[in-house]
Amino acid sequence: MTRNNHTTADNRPSEPRADTHSDIASTGQSTANQDDVVTLAHGAGGEAMRSLVDTLAVSRFADGSSADTAGAVGLAALDDGSVHPLPGTDISIVLTTDSHIVTPPTFPGGDIGRLSVAGTVNDLAVMGVTDPLALTCGLVVEEGTPTAELDRFLESMRESAVEAGVDITTGDTKVMGAGELDGIVLNTTGVGTIPTSEVVTGAGLSPGDAIVLSGTVGDHGIALLAEREGFDFGANLESDVAPINGLVAAATDAGRVTAMTDPTRGGLATALNEMAEKAGVGLEIEEQAIPVDDAIASAGEVLGIDPLSVANEGKVVFGVHSDDADSVLAALREQPLGSNAAIIGQVISDHPGRVVLDTGFGNRYLSEPTGEALPRIC
Amino acid sequence: MTRNNHTTADNRPSEPRADTHSDIASTGQSTANQDDVVTLAHGAGGEAMRSLVDTLAVSRFADGSSADTAGAVGLAALDDGSVHPLPGTDISIVLTTDSHIVTPPTFPGGDIGRLSVAGTVNDLAVMGVTDPLALTCGLVVEEGTPTAELDRFLESMRESAVEAGVDITTGDTKVMGAGELDGIVLNTTGVGTIPTSEVVTGAGLSPGDAIVLSGTVGDHGIALLAEREGFDFGANLESDVAPINGLVAAATDAGRVTAMTDPTRGGLATALNEMAEKAGVGLEIEEQAIPVDDAIASAGEVLGIDPLSVANEGKVVFGVHSDDADSVLAALREQPLGSNAAIIGQVISDHPGRVVLDTGFGNRYLSEPTGEALPRIC
Repeated sequence: MTRNNHTTADNRPSEPRADTHSDIASTGQSTANQDDVVTLAHGAGGEAMRSLVDTLAVSRFADGSSADTAGAVGLAALDDGSVHPLPGTDISIVLTTDSHIVTPPTFPGGDIGRLSVAGTVNDLAVMGVTDPLALTCGLVVEEGTPTAELDRFLESMRESAVEAGVDITTGDTKVMGAGELDGIVLNTTGVGTIPTSEVVTGAGLSPGDAIVLSGTVGDHGIALLAEREGFDFGANLESDVAPINGLVAAATDAGRVTAMTDPTRGGLATALNEMAEKAGVGLEIEEQAIPVDDAIASAGEVLGIDPLSVANEGKVVFGVHSDDADSVLAALREQPLGSNAAIIGQVISDHPGRVVLDTGFGNRYLSEPTGEALPRIC
Repeated sequence: MTRNNHTTADNRPSEPRADTHSDIASTGQSTANQDDVVTLAHGAGGEAMRSLVDTLAVSRFADGSSADTAGAVGLAALDDGSVHPLPGTDISIVLTTDSHIVTPPTFPGGDIGRLSVAGTVNDLAVMGVTDPLALTCGLVVEEGTPTAELDRFLESMRESAVEAGVDITTGDTKVMGAGELDGIVLNTTGVGTIPTSEVVTGAGLSPGDAIVLSGTVGDHGIALLAEREGFDFGANLESDVAPINGLVAAATDAGRVTAMTDPTRGGLATALNEMAEKAGVGLEIEEQAIPVDDAIASAGEVLGIDPLSVANEGKVVFGVHSDDADSVLAALREQPLGSNAAIIGQVISDHPGRVVLDTGFGNRYLSEPTGEALPRIC
């Protein structure tokens, strides 16, 4: 089979089309049948997915004995990874995993190989591990895939791993029949060590903290959808996929970072809601302060996709002690990947668990997408 | 779609049928086109797969800087995992990954959930880590999968994890469209810590060592194929899938274990050849001493599958210092999973890299399967 047939011509009736989505609130599929079968909405990183994961996995696995160790972060935290303090030391092992599926596997600004390295390096980075120890590579590939294509993706992994300063040290390869898998599934698991006291979680926000965003949002999701749908916007729309562990190190060196997360599936809207919910605080976000590339914003309007609701693959949301917000912002802006960094809001004690968006014309709650805006873009 | 349509009625022309395989030598597909596209043979754990992995991954990733650390085991070792000595300590982190795909996902003796835990726990165990720290769970599921089915597999994971004494601490869930994935891909990555001096690799054999096998071979592969092909052999053919970290601990406590591996994809034949090749020694194996369950042997004859060439999911091959062979054997036989353990041969200096099989009627080299005997059974 050919590798580039994943555009509007394909025949996947269950996949929501872009033109059905005019705003965040309507991007979800119905989840009425979520108790019976798994739907694409369950994989989208929003409410439907958290509900499924809560029901099936968290309640089941979260009572493991290691979760009781002081400093440990287990599954119940629903954080970007787990934290394992090593007995008798002040060191913790941090662990995170991500299976990468993206259509098309090569896209403007990157490919599945780069995505698989950046995605996992970034999950470690937002836990505080900016010098990761190793990545694993679990490759599942469709029979008939040209080896030259596989070679390109693995070379892209190598280049991105060098950029992030991490080694790929062990792996596994499986082949599925052409009728069983369309494309490639690439799992990477990352491991790192860190002084236990330096672990950062998504739950560390306190009222008064500044919310700092490392750059523009929406690039990955909207560039991918434009490519998939075959639109030509006359502008270079590119994914932002990049390892951001260096950027995170610059920020944490410059000031007191209280919480971090990377706004991937579900976008900035989901990331902010999760941070607010985990810390039991409110967030007050100024919509005009959120950096969005002009071409991405225009394309998003045509496609009916809100840049705040789609995945980014090279961005970080920081909670920063208010006294240090300016120094962290300055440090970020000195980095090539942080040149568009901005303070976008602050933590408040009102509206716990909610995100209040000041649109310039009034306030509204910023909801997270409940379902599937863009299947399989990360 | 229904979940149980993976029998002889399906239409996958590229998948070798059982009746084309009358012995080990003929189980491989042609690999003439392996330079061009990926074939099912590349995923079978034999020579074709090693060639692909060598070409695409090992040469590319193996020069990572961490491979230079004393005691480190990286990708180039092609071992069951990688080993990362922690600077300033005598502790190493051991890391292994495996993506599990199995048709049917529920089979006699187990299911994909149990397989995903046992497979990774066992890879850690044969590196010497019998008390693993954590597993990750990277789940990719087909849209439309009944949540009740997913629930069963995750419950099976939980039960197997309790049996192995390991926690599942972080995970990732992705959903693919029904036209893109048939079934479930379940990646587990395992991490453990161990005193660096206690790491066991597949390369530690020396002439004179005994080769000890923990039990019968062929059970998983032949039980799976019989189920898939719909044969009723009038006997309970069951997979041996089980976490064997307790069994390994019993063996290593009882004597000097010089090398270990678990004979999964490619079976005992591949495991023995790899051990011989890595250590640059020969192996002399007595065919009559290899334990094979009678019903499995009979079914294997009908199906045209050699029990030595198919995957096991609860077995270990040990190299043991000759003075300790009897005590290790006795310790294994005291364990429920080791009751059929046997000394099956010894390490010799002749025939380096080869396995000499004494059939009782003369000697021949035991080859490993080059290609695909049983796709996606582990």
